[in-house]
Amino acid sequence: MQTGVIIVAAGSGERLGYGIPKAQVPLAGEPILAYALRGVIASGIADAICVAVPRHDEALRQVCAEVSQAAAADGGECPPILAVDGGASRADSVREALVTLQGVDAILVHDAARALTPPEVFQRVTTALAQGGQAVIPVREMTDTVKVVEHSDNAAIAPEVVHETPDRTRMRVVQTPQGFAREALTRAHAAAELFDDQQAAAVTDDAMLVESMSVPVYAVPGSDLSLKITTETDLVLAEALLQKYGS
Amino acid sequence: MQTGVIIVAAGSGERLGYGIPKAQVPLAGEPILAYALRGVIASGIADAICVAVPRHDEALRQVCAEVSQAAAADGGECPPILAVDGGASRADSVREALVTLQGVDAILVHDAARALTPPEVFQRVTTALAQGGQAVIPVREMTDTVKVVEHSDNAAIAPEVVHETPDRTRMRVVQTPQGFAREALTRAHAAAELFDDQQAAAVTDDAMLVESMSVPVYAVPGSDLSLKITTETDLVLAEALLQKYGS
Repeated sequence: MQTGVIIVAAGSGERLGYGIPKAQVPLAGEPILAYALRGVIASGIADAICVAVPRHDEALRQVCAEVSQAAAADGGECPPILAVDGGASRADSVREALVTLQGVDAILVHDAARALTPPEVFQRVTTALAQGGQAVIPVREMTDTVKVVEHSDNAAIAPEVVHETPDRTRMRVVQTPQGFAREALTRAHAAAELFDDQQAAAVTDDAMLVESMSVPVYAVPGSDLSLKITTETDLVLAEALLQKYGS
Repeated sequence: MQTGVIIVAAGSGERLGYGIPKAQVPLAGEPILAYALRGVIASGIADAICVAVPRHDEALRQVCAEVSQAAAADGGECPPILAVDGGASRADSVREALVTLQGVDAILVHDAARALTPPEVFQRVTTALAQGGQAVIPVREMTDTVKVVEHSDNAAIAPEVVHETPDRTRMRVVQTPQGFAREALTRAHAAAELFDDQQAAAVTDDAMLVESMSVPVYAVPGSDLSLKITTETDLVLAEALLQKYGS
């Protein structure tokens, strides 16, 4: 099985307040993308890596080159790293990368913002694909109580009121990398290209697209370290995890 | 409106690996309970505080006394802090505290493990109760994609497979303090005392009990700082938040 990894690094990161693309934001002094790339490389599962960067971004292309050179200097195996211009949406970026990554049977789609995802998670997803899964996602148990809300009938008290408490024992929190048989992912993304804006906004991960085509999506254990860095608070948390557990 | 705050601090904290009750575990050198108590006191909303500690625990009673003395020494207002032996389950601990906290109209139930909950959250919950809410919970938006899973038909790939992706825009992550009109909470906990073990295990927060009696539960904004400390990783995160944002 030849495996390609798509790293989506085209996000603006405006909630981090740095005024630069999210994957460039420094985490303990190094750009977020560098950590994500090293996690993929260390896992040993990638035959090729394709990074979708913001249009015309040179800084992240430079990060790709530096990580690649450092891996080679360490004498480790480093697959080719390709950088492509991302699109307007996350799904557009994945489609751009899919066109570039030819000649692979399996694709893992990973968010650069999950910079500290351990190599074992990439390996678990890849193993399940090799066992015949067409779609595999890493998940964690839901440790918080969750409520479904609706508009309140008394805005003076609060704008929202609880509709129900769903059974959390059957709920999972979804992470990346999400792995797919190439053909299933390509087909799902081709269908999604026809979505209107509302439909497109409702798609929050790649697995949803494949689910809607009735492809079974298998769940393997993710990791507490696989935090998605979105807010300034997340950046503080990620630096603490890095200090405690290393990259 | 007279308001009592119940702090549930009777948990074992075995997942933290300290071999002492969770509320005693040090966070940057001070027990978790001390932070939780100071948050309640700083909010100014409590007319009385009742802490449910593990049976015969003296160390946490001592923490209550020290926090109370320190608040008085600072010249601030400090409501009386009562300590009671907690029960075998979280619900039992709340019932013990409810019996002790007489003469209040409103009750907020708070987990000591949410040590860094900012005073504003206590204030928001109390304000919504004062506006006529009989049940009010603090919530955050669901930022992760969530899946509902079921047993897989192919364990060689993975033990679980996705059943569906619920609409996360209507989902909220629930925190504490949860606030209630005293009568509604007392009635709900009296009914829950008759639950069998399976029913009792399915109750993960106080609001669920009140929901089941068709009392509307209103939702107000919680806080990113209101992390529930359960695992060693959570302790690392809480210390980082403390360092960055103060107590």
